[in-house]
Amino acid sequence: LAASSSDEIEALREQIRQLDQKLRALERKQELRDEAAATAAKPPVVTAAASGFGFAAADKAFELRIRGLFQFDARFFLDDGAPNRDQFLLRRIRTPLTGTVAGIYEFNITPELGGGTNSSTTVALWDAFVAARFSPAFGVRFGKFPSAVGLEPGSNRHFIESPFVNSLLPNRDLGVEFFGTLTDGLIDYRLGVVVGVPNNTTNFGGASPDLNDGDRTLAGRITLHPFTQLKDSPFAKLSLGVGFSHGNEQGVAGANLSNGLSNVTSQAQQLIFNYGPTLYAAGTHTRISPSAEWYPGTPFSAVAEYAHEEQDIAVDATGLTRTFENTAWRATVGYVLTGEEATKSGVNPKTAFSVGDGGWGAFEVVARVSGLDLDSALTRPVAAGGAGLSRNNNVKSAFAYGLGLNWYLNRSARFLINLENTEYEGAKTPTAAIGARDDELVFITRAQLTF
Amino acid sequence: LAASSSDEIEALREQIRQLDQKLRALERKQELRDEAAATAAKPPVVTAAASGFGFAAADKAFELRIRGLFQFDARFFLDDGAPNRDQFLLRRIRTPLTGTVAGIYEFNITPELGGGTNSSTTVALWDAFVAARFSPAFGVRFGKFPSAVGLEPGSNRHFIESPFVNSLLPNRDLGVEFFGTLTDGLIDYRLGVVVGVPNNTTNFGGASPDLNDGDRTLAGRITLHPFTQLKDSPFAKLSLGVGFSHGNEQGVAGANLSNGLSNVTSQAQQLIFNYGPTLYAAGTHTRISPSAEWYPGTPFSAVAEYAHEEQDIAVDATGLTRTFENTAWRATVGYVLTGEEATKSGVNPKTAFSVGDGGWGAFEVVARVSGLDLDSALTRPVAAGGAGLSRNNNVKSAFAYGLGLNWYLNRSARFLINLENTEYEGAKTPTAAIGARDDELVFITRAQLTF
Amino acid sequence: LAASSSDEIEALREQIRQLDQKLRALERKQELRDEAAATAAKPPVVTAAASGFGFAAADKAFELRIRGLFQFDARFFLDDGAPNRDQFLLRRIRTPLTGTVAGIYEFNITPELGGGTNSSTTVALWDAFVAARFSPAFGVRFGKFPSAVGLEPGSNRHFIESPFVNSLLPNRDLGVEFFGTLTDGLIDYRLGVVVGVPNNTTNFGGASPDLNDGDRTLAGRITLHPFTQLKDSPFAKLSLGVGFSHGNEQGVAGANLSNGLSNVTSQAQQLIFNYGPTLYAAGTHTRISPSAEWYPGTPFSAVAEYAHEEQDIAVDATGLTRTFENTAWRATVGYVLTGEEATKSGVNPKTAFSVGDGGWGAFEVVARVSGLDLDSALTRPVAAGGAGLSRNNNVKSAFAYGLGLNWYLNRSARFLINLENTEYEGAKTPTAAIGARDDELVFITRAQLTF
Repeated sequence: LAASSSDEIEALREQIRQLDQKLRALERKQELRDEAAATAAKPPVVTAAASGFGFAAADKAFELRIRGLFQFDARFFLDDGAPNRDQFLLRRIRTPLTGTVAGIYEFNITPELGGGTNSSTTVALWDAFVAARFSPAFGVRFGKFPSAVGLEPGSNRHFIESPFVNSLLPNRDLGVEFFGTLTDGLIDYRLGVVVGVPNNTTNFGGASPDLNDGDRTLAGRITLHPFTQLKDSPFAKLSLGVGFSHGNEQGVAGANLSNGLSNVTSQAQQLIFNYGPTLYAAGTHTRISPSAEWYPGTPFSAVAEYAHEEQDIAVDATGLTRTFENTAWRATVGYVLTGEEATKSGVNPKTAFSVGDGGWGAFEVVARVSGLDLDSALTRPVAAGGAGLSRNNNVKSAFAYGLGLNWYLNRSARFLINLENTEYEGAKTPTAAIGARDDELVFITRAQLTF
Repeated sequence: LAASSSDEIEALREQIRQLDQKLRALERKQELRDEAAATAAKPPVVTAAASGFGFAAADKAFELRIRGLFQFDARFFLDDGAPNRDQFLLRRIRTPLTGTVAGIYEFNITPELGGGTNSSTTVALWDAFVAARFSPAFGVRFGKFPSAVGLEPGSNRHFIESPFVNSLLPNRDLGVEFFGTLTDGLIDYRLGVVVGVPNNTTNFGGASPDLNDGDRTLAGRITLHPFTQLKDSPFAKLSLGVGFSHGNEQGVAGANLSNGLSNVTSQAQQLIFNYGPTLYAAGTHTRISPSAEWYPGTPFSAVAEYAHEEQDIAVDATGLTRTFENTAWRATVGYVLTGEEATKSGVNPKTAFSVGDGGWGAFEVVARVSGLDLDSALTRPVAAGGAGLSRNNNVKSAFAYGLGLNWYLNRSARFLINLENTEYEGAKTPTAAIGARDDELVFITRAQLTF
Repeated sequence: LAASSSDEIEALREQIRQLDQKLRALERKQELRDEAAATAAKPPVVTAAASGFGFAAADKAFELRIRGLFQFDARFFLDDGAPNRDQFLLRRIRTPLTGTVAGIYEFNITPELGGGTNSSTTVALWDAFVAARFSPAFGVRFGKFPSAVGLEPGSNRHFIESPFVNSLLPNRDLGVEFFGTLTDGLIDYRLGVVVGVPNNTTNFGGASPDLNDGDRTLAGRITLHPFTQLKDSPFAKLSLGVGFSHGNEQGVAGANLSNGLSNVTSQAQQLIFNYGPTLYAAGTHTRISPSAEWYPGTPFSAVAEYAHEEQDIAVDATGLTRTFENTAWRATVGYVLTGEEATKSGVNPKTAFSVGDGGWGAFEVVARVSGLDLDSALTRPVAAGGAGLSRNNNVKSAFAYGLGLNWYLNRSARFLINLENTEYEGAKTPTAAIGARDDELVFITRAQLTF
């Protein structure tokens, strides 16, 4: 019995030994599997979410984002004396490719497939630039990019259309720009050498003299964030900035833009001032534009901006050149009724709009006043020291005030409503062809989708 | 011995306890791993297959598809009296971005990079719309989208080029449209307020009066699927529809399209009717287009369509306005020789074409007859109650019949061959400059790739 | 005791049996998991790296690549007698979609969003083709693709701008081409039937006669790799080629390109020869272009190329047709200072440029001589057997020599500097409007990003 018991115990011991071996093997296999997973090259990360569409290397050194901007507007002119201008339009249809290459080279290639006017066949290159930030204090950007001179070139945070300030400032320009952040975020700077586009413009025609005059324009912007260190202060996100440009511009008499000048349109894109076929840019063009932005981290937000330009213009066929000064300004406020924080990029609604779930998104009311004051010498006879433009067709000044309601359905979709009235001075004989000389009362809606 | 045996048993028991513990630990670890995998956020899904290229959130609430359409045609005019019109052409090169944002907002942005004519430099925005389907019965679409008036705007299921019916109907239009499916799929409806484009057109020139006339056009389509409930019936996929549009159009004398009218071309895109520089749209434009589609779930398919338009046109410089009526019709059939089912989107071949494996893809024969009947008053003198257009240059009616062979190499590639003859009435003095007044016998091939 | 010992042993045995069962279950579970992973459909592969952005099915049968080309140039004319031509420009902004469908159908759709001139609004379709390689010896390509006639159509491996050879050869053409590799890589062939574009051109205007003349042009290239079998030989990557085209071309008097002819520009894209409004293509056009390329697998590289064309041109309003012959040539060498291998696609730097890590990338010096010799009869009076073009405005021949430094920051980014001088013969009365008649000394820089 003892022997048998001892044998059995021995047999059990052997069984246990084998079990233990198998268990260790299994454990080891599991460990190896875990190690392999931990040390495996991390695969690229694909994103398809409210933040957009794209894919990137795990370390983000290479990233591509495929983006879209869709704006469909309806404009209704309520009382303006000129017929037949109500319209649907594709205001902006853009499909930007943005991203990063080799860690620090950020690119942006943005075609505009339709937009600007009621023509849906306009296809243009909106942005095309590469930016390399070598350190927080120093980066370089080159190509075609949003001008540093104005606060919101070619766009508007609160309203559907830009105020008159944008009518005196460049939109996109072509060149090389240095940028950075100094003294712990207190100062942002941008300083560039650019071609120098006419006001409110992005395109460079082959015939445009601005590219061919052999001159460059110096353009930049300094932005102060005076209280950025006071993290919890409502003033932490107050920004004070000033943009500027200075350069020579040389046009040829003839068409708008080719003359190095840019006609002025109303808030609703109606022509209200036309430099005509005789005048052309011929000398120095200087712009300065101070601005203040305040996003205190609450539902409230406020932006104010001023623009002044001084330009040498040839006023007759002999090339007689005079200097003219124009100014514009605006003040905008917004308040998010549904309580979300107002940020520079908009509002991120707490609940998305949904027919089933009863969510409504976020609502923001906005208000704006803006003004334009063109040099009165522009419509004075040449013999009297002016530029000789017709007083009948061209406004001398404008004052606009408007209200709007911005409905943020979710992070991607929004629906905007604006009602704006503009009062003009000058242009006493309105004509249908030029329009918009009576006060302009316009109701605009926009359906926008971004991804 | 007993003590020793007891000790040994105790030692074994301890060993077994340890083994059991280790085993439990391993089991638990495995369970945790399984749970983690089950509850982990599902990563986005990437697709690169015959169904296309794209990526989407796991729940499909956000999805982006990057698509392509490539059509390379060769046209050979076999016997037409006009020289030098044989050509290669890039008929349609499009790279649509389509997808979904926030669950229900579907977007489509389609640039056309080349196409329409033998110019390969044409770049235009073809589609740009957002559609939100809030319930099966109700959705809204806005932007630029395929018109509801015709059955196959700007494309053709069976043949390379569209029949005459498309010459009298809009292609793309700009506006807002409501759509949905009622009574369990029995009725589909589309009803929109659009700008109102001229016939067979997608573009809105900045000078086009159709955008500026302050009027809107009502356009829509009702489609009945009368036997959709009889799932197994060959009539389940029979559709009967009627499209319509009604609105004011106002052109200006001068160029094609700017006059609010659209010249008529042959099946092979040769100009056969020219509204000329005097006539312009001046009043009501009404279109109606009934159609029938039958895809019985077999290799056979059939489509028939009719279009009638009535338009007020100013016929002289005094603005004298008269109403003209044009009609067109077509009937198309197809049969898949290799036995696959003919569907509305084409044929999905059982075996793909392959040089090595001996697969041949699918083959479908198609046939079509179509007709055009323009108002005979258009070529009658103004003094006699007509529009005063030349009888020499403009056809009065046309009748076309054609055969084709469609080779589906796989789900993405197809090669099409069409032979079509068109007989004209009217236009008795053909000229080379205008061409196509003799009967047109044309042989067209198309190589197409879609992704 | 014995019984108790026996019971205990029995209990232990049962425990061990249970442990063993659990272990087997766990092992089996693990095996099943491994099997499932091994047999699971392999998911698509996403790439975001120096090699580019894209995604593909695991077997690569379906692949999409989203690519970009960004070139921002600055040109400085150092001494040329004509004012105001210094400029920044977006030379090429392209966003190609390339990839594979169903295994063998490779596609390329390349829009050019800006480029060619200082206009940044040019949007055009650059490439649009599908190529199917059925076997190494035989494939077919159709659509719009880089012409086979020249070695580097529309681009240059070593320098920023192409040499004069490209001025006499087509850039992109439209048609069908067969291609393949014969005799174990010894011979590459391309042979196509194309529309036949004018020299140095990619666009086909709707009015261009070249598409409408009903003629086709035969175009191709044979490339020999005589020592490709000697793998380790420095001559293994020596290529000798000859491109050719032959066809009828018919223009109409009037504008450049519409006349079926293409004006000649300098290396810095300044107009130096203008066919004018009277001359037009009227008959046979034949080109031949032998070339040699040598990339011996070392830092050194060399390319030489010659082009000869013979074209029938109508020289007056009576259609009097004469034949003119033009030739051009170039020789280019490069040497990578940092020791990397020079390849046809550039240089892959051993270390990437980095401000922090002290890497500098790769540097390559390049040198080029090139010449242009236009038929002297072109500027001889018609009565004397010439084409009657002005001797004042049009150069007769040109000789250019230049140096360059190419800095490869990493695989994606490069910065190029070129200094090139061109000496002209003919055109004795330079005018500012036409420019570039004095010798042209130009300094060009390029910042380039590809992905």
